[in-house]
Amino acid sequence: MSLGIEAAVFDVFGTMTDWRSSVTGELAAAGGRAGLQADWPAVADAWRRAYRPALISVLSGETPYRPLDELHRSMLDEVLAEFGLDALGETDRDGLVRAWHRLRAWPDAPHGLELLHGSKVITATLSNGGVGLLARLTKQAGLRFDCVLSAELAGSYKPDPRVYLMAAELLQVEPRRLLMVACHPDDLAAAAKTGLRTAYVPRPLEWGPDAAPAAPPADVDLIADDIVDLARILA
Amino acid sequence: MSLGIEAAVFDVFGTMTDWRSSVTGELAAAGGRAGLQADWPAVADAWRRAYRPALISVLSGETPYRPLDELHRSMLDEVLAEFGLDALGETDRDGLVRAWHRLRAWPDAPHGLELLHGSKVITATLSNGGVGLLARLTKQAGLRFDCVLSAELAGSYKPDPRVYLMAAELLQVEPRRLLMVACHPDDLAAAAKTGLRTAYVPRPLEWGPDAAPAAPPADVDLIADDIVDLARILA
Repeated sequence: MSLGIEAAVFDVFGTMTDWRSSVTGELAAAGGRAGLQADWPAVADAWRRAYRPALISVLSGETPYRPLDELHRSMLDEVLAEFGLDALGETDRDGLVRAWHRLRAWPDAPHGLELLHGSKVITATLSNGGVGLLARLTKQAGLRFDCVLSAELAGSYKPDPRVYLMAAELLQVEPRRLLMVACHPDDLAAAAKTGLRTAYVPRPLEWGPDAAPAAPPADVDLIADDIVDLARILA
Repeated sequence: MSLGIEAAVFDVFGTMTDWRSSVTGELAAAGGRAGLQADWPAVADAWRRAYRPALISVLSGETPYRPLDELHRSMLDEVLAEFGLDALGETDRDGLVRAWHRLRAWPDAPHGLELLHGSKVITATLSNGGVGLLARLTKQAGLRFDCVLSAELAGSYKPDPRVYLMAAELLQVEPRRLLMVACHPDDLAAAAKTGLRTAYVPRPLEWGPDAAPAAPPADVDLIADDIVDLARILA
């Protein structure tokens, strides 16, 4: 392709990994051990939906920056209270926060990354998950990135423009040679505002099989079916 | 083994890569294009020897922090002048700075890292090279790390204790569960002072076949023949 891409950075929660089935499974297992019953996919969805307001609160300066693990923990406490699951103990709650370190990859993602590893394009994560989370997650899920980058390194969260610009600076590429890959239009729009190129990868199953399909965003540089297709386009 | 190691961080220049033959080859190629003759291994050695004083100058506060590429460039200018090689042009000098992004791995290093990738131990670089340098180098050299960490992320250089402690914090491991792997006793001694465990890997060819063999350091937690042996010990 003709965009002259030298490096590509990837959203992880949703774009490369199926957080919903992974987290639902761990919630159900922890709940089962505690003798609790609940609509576990709904608990997982509520936990994930609490994410955006928590980020906005940090990015607006309303609450100070905290690592994602801590945000996940306080969101989990609120969601469990909301679903009447207060009986879940401390150890289980800490374990559930680590569920986000063990997310499963979407089936195409490992092979797509291997193809990109064999190309000239440098690949890196660019996630709101911390460096430790991402190192564990990518190792366990078989996601071969050339580099692990996290919003943590900018002391902020996406969609703060500083996060995208930090990635370009650390990777030593001009922003227009850096491609942001995500299934979330707002992530891509924020990246584009800082001068990055953008690739949209649809993940229709992100919110489960019954979720309404999302329309692809209009203003992206390219759309790929999945990560294998993306590798083909960039090769 | 019984050290309870959860993650291992690796020195790169010397420990994982043969900087001397790589840089000598690029110096000879650039010099040849410019019609210059010199004892190229000696030029490479002089360039590398200028490294420690440059770091000490930064760490003592005498000169401000600059990325390693910039340090490499000003050291190169001095070394070329010293060897009467001023005729080497700007483009070649910039290219030679990038020679450090393209170092060859020692023969055992790729396989050793693959073995560690299949273990529970998280692996990361911990080098004075920048993130962009390390991402390119590890990709080209076939060095599969789970994470790329650089002293650049602490805005400093090894052996500043902040660099080792930053690695433990970002990887979310206690310092005593983190192993520093290096062929340089001073790197290991500085890591040990911050509470990290240490592994010495001898690289008798680092300074070429005629260099005097170095004695292994006394105060390390383990000594491995090479990275494959290290993987076996940690498994």
